[in-house]
Amino acid sequence: MSEPEALEWSTDDCTIQRTVEAIGDRWSLIVLRELFAGIRRFDQMTVRTEIPRQVLTARLARFTELGIARRVPYQEPGQRTRSEYRLTDKGLDLYPVLLAMSAWGDRYAAPADGPPITWVHRGCGAELTQEVECADGHRLAGTREISGRPGPGARRRTA
Amino acid sequence: MSEPEALEWSTDDCTIQRTVEAIGDRWSLIVLRELFAGIRRFDQMTVRTEIPRQVLTARLARFTELGIARRVPYQEPGQRTRSEYRLTDKGLDLYPVLLAMSAWGDRYAAPADGPPITWVHRGCGAELTQEVECADGHRLAGTREISGRPGPGARRRTA
Repeated sequence: MSEPEALEWSTDDCTIQRTVEAIGDRWSLIVLRELFAGIRRFDQMTVRTEIPRQVLTARLARFTELGIARRVPYQEPGQRTRSEYRLTDKGLDLYPVLLAMSAWGDRYAAPADGPPITWVHRGCGAELTQEVECADGHRLAGTREISGRPGPGARRRTA
Repeated sequence: MSEPEALEWSTDDCTIQRTVEAIGDRWSLIVLRELFAGIRRFDQMTVRTEIPRQVLTARLARFTELGIARRVPYQEPGQRTRSEYRLTDKGLDLYPVLLAMSAWGDRYAAPADGPPITWVHRGCGAELTQEVECADGHRLAGTREISGRPGPGARRRTA
């Protein structure tokens, strides 16, 4: 068997890997889920998760540093000013990742009575699906129709 | 400020969380990338990654246990029989997650000369995009048009 062609290419600039480095760990993904669910405050993020407080602090600091979330001050009556966290446009652009994870979990790991969340179009209330299409207008039925080619930033691997 | 509505709902059956539990760690995602790149053999998976061998062993065992990958025996001339790993349909169904991570990385973390990989439709060679559509045929422009509603498997949170 000849070697897979992918072995000829470097992964140094792999953009999947860079996304993994930004968000690809259990707690980052759970914190993202909470942010997408509209949960913005530190203490609220500990309500539905078992996240250790120091891990939450670190993840929120990292999201802020990466420009995925931004701090917004708020003050409750009689309390000191605190920060809440809101997704930036860069963070909001991660929704296809979360939607895709939700769809896979709905298919393979949902409770017996069905998915816990239904994703809908806010405008009309109809359910959402995520589709892959090509620039020629073909809708792809699955991964076997997808091919990866070296892009403009591809580098050959050096041994 | 009233509490976010999401706090009323349990995440015990969250399907994003279940997907995170299956694949949501750095090395699982990198091993998935290698499998999607057509790299099937243990030693080949150590070529483009820094993955420790015992971690790779554990991830491949877990993917096999979860039905994301399956072992297929192979034998090179003069060598003992070994196993390679191929994505099952369940594993292949994770491609929207990888595509979404790739798209986000291409947008926010690509090298200066562009993305290292171009994803194309195998049939016609045209570039791919991932779209979100609703059942009424509307194409969504972004996350602000998406709303999550309690689905059939939703459970209220108990304190």
